[in-house]
Amino acid sequence: MFRKDRLERILSAMKEDKLSQLLITDSQSIYYITGINIHNGNRFYGLYINENGKCCLINNALFPLHNPEIDVVWYNDTESAVKKLSGVVDASKSIGVDKFMSAHFLIEMMNLKIASAYINGSPYVDYVRMVKDAEEIEKMQAASTLNDKAMGMLIPKVKIGMTELECIDELTKIYAELGGEGFSFDPIIGFGANAANPHHSSNDTKLKEGESVILDIGCVKNGYCSDMTRTIFSSEPDAESKKVFNIVKEANEKAIAAVKPGVKFSEIDGVARGHIEAAGYGKSFTHRTGHCIGQSVHEFGDVSAIHHATLKEGMIFSIEPGIYLTGKVGVRIEDLVVVTADGCKSLNSYSKEIFIKK
Amino acid sequence: MFRKDRLERILSAMKEDKLSQLLITDSQSIYYITGINIHNGNRFYGLYINENGKCCLINNALFPLHNPEIDVVWYNDTESAVKKLSGVVDASKSIGVDKFMSAHFLIEMMNLKIASAYINGSPYVDYVRMVKDAEEIEKMQAASTLNDKAMGMLIPKVKIGMTELECIDELTKIYAELGGEGFSFDPIIGFGANAANPHHSSNDTKLKEGESVILDIGCVKNGYCSDMTRTIFSSEPDAESKKVFNIVKEANEKAIAAVKPGVKFSEIDGVARGHIEAAGYGKSFTHRTGHCIGQSVHEFGDVSAIHHATLKEGMIFSIEPGIYLTGKVGVRIEDLVVVTADGCKSLNSYSKEIFIKK
Repeated sequence: MFRKDRLERILSAMKEDKLSQLLITDSQSIYYITGINIHNGNRFYGLYINENGKCCLINNALFPLHNPEIDVVWYNDTESAVKKLSGVVDASKSIGVDKFMSAHFLIEMMNLKIASAYINGSPYVDYVRMVKDAEEIEKMQAASTLNDKAMGMLIPKVKIGMTELECIDELTKIYAELGGEGFSFDPIIGFGANAANPHHSSNDTKLKEGESVILDIGCVKNGYCSDMTRTIFSSEPDAESKKVFNIVKEANEKAIAAVKPGVKFSEIDGVARGHIEAAGYGKSFTHRTGHCIGQSVHEFGDVSAIHHATLKEGMIFSIEPGIYLTGKVGVRIEDLVVVTADGCKSLNSYSKEIFIKK
Repeated sequence: MFRKDRLERILSAMKEDKLSQLLITDSQSIYYITGINIHNGNRFYGLYINENGKCCLINNALFPLHNPEIDVVWYNDTESAVKKLSGVVDASKSIGVDKFMSAHFLIEMMNLKIASAYINGSPYVDYVRMVKDAEEIEKMQAASTLNDKAMGMLIPKVKIGMTELECIDELTKIYAELGGEGFSFDPIIGFGANAANPHHSSNDTKLKEGESVILDIGCVKNGYCSDMTRTIFSSEPDAESKKVFNIVKEANEKAIAAVKPGVKFSEIDGVARGHIEAAGYGKSFTHRTGHCIGQSVHEFGDVSAIHHATLKEGMIFSIEPGIYLTGKVGVRIEDLVVVTADGCKSLNSYSKEIFIKK
């Protein structure tokens, strides 16, 4: 369905900066506005919008559309899509283009003088997509509710002697049973020393006694992504592992408690990082505190020390502090939160208490 | 290992067109020249080369290098990589940039006047990479020899009642046993009506009597890709299936026989397509005849009606004609060939004769 409200929000952001026209080539952003879902690889695919309400799709004839609710400029493989833009774009004005559009399209646009100047137009779409509307919040909640259930079914399956890949196999079956639409990212399931690598690729490592188990999992539901992490222990862990677990849990809870409209992303990162630093583990928290999420598992917008945008009601992002002691133990606890009028609501409700298998 | 010979070939192609400097951002092209293998997602990563022999890498400090054989300009996440280019690029001259570089880097380059003009510089690298050197041909042969062996082990495993996904599972084990480094692409294994869709995604379909089985498989070995297709039958097929099989086999053989230096890619496509058209199945051969291959399974250069470049000794590409009768039967037969001084050599030697399981 064509979402005129979303288009209006983007046009209104452009108006503030006196940008009159925009060429969007990110297929998820085009889907977000038009409801049209095409993935055509390296062929040109773009949505042109301007301040006068003109809105049209430039699309390859190999990807037919049935009754599109929008004007379409068609081209085929023997034609230049960029040449077709000359009949669409106002050549006397500057245009915003997508940050990830391939450079050769921009070079051809410049050679053909499609517009008078070119700027990075992605922020006009990115900042609108960061603020989820009611329909999106509902879908994000449904995906995370499913993920909470999956976590509850997965944890009892984790057993000493099983491999990380076997654990992922169990998760695959659980998501299928719960009606998930596939992983939102390759699950990061790490045992023991592997849990101490936040970007570990799961393998044939077998779970042993006293190890931490990082379960960083997410699925897609109705086109929206979930993403959560819990850390459990295969059996009674040593004192430092327990200590580290509690510091991470407190960092997660403190950061969530600090989320409300008007606070900066960087301040939320500061709360989680400050808590871990004060406990003496600052150097072992090696990544940002979180990231925005929606149709993609990683959308524009980090919860990090260098992102100073201000939180607004409707933004959804992860809070996922961690401590990684190389070769020994890793702990990460992650929830998704949605910013509300006066604070935030966690989309995940699965327990964060320490869980020791036996 | 830094490959000065490959760099020289690129510089020599640039010289012919009087292009003095080039910025390469494709990570495989950078690996091809420097032996350095980095995948850093959306962060800037580039190799600058110019006619005076200057050659340096622009790289994010998050991706450290041990004893690089090349100058490196480092930047970190609080700095602009493009600003660093101002100390590297000759601002008074035009520069070639990679076709798939993200547009926002090019916009920033223009804003900072990094060069005097910008052109698509990818062809200078692409046409060099199309012609494989002796070391690459040896690796491509090894990958295809492994693939021939895998095909010989897979075909006996194909049985009535098994699913396409079970067949892929068998292939996974075979490649692992033979020392493959993973699939070079998701195998396309299609039974019966599914075989009639050249872009079929394998699923739980079970193999039945009298069906065609497309086995389009490839693996990576020493960083280079194999890719071959054989079509077999689960039991005695009907007369039309046999007829179609023979037409495709002849098209494959005729096209391979036509490969030699000086002939155009489009002419090779014409030989395969002409044979299938003459037999009355032209509309059922719905894709190009082949594609170049090397470090990637699909490299620049199609064997298609619209690619008129001339074959040179050392080029490697697939010859994969097919006939697809929707809902009924699909046949495709594919080999990789390397162009030699006076013809070509097939990298695959597995039998193309019709194979009927029982």
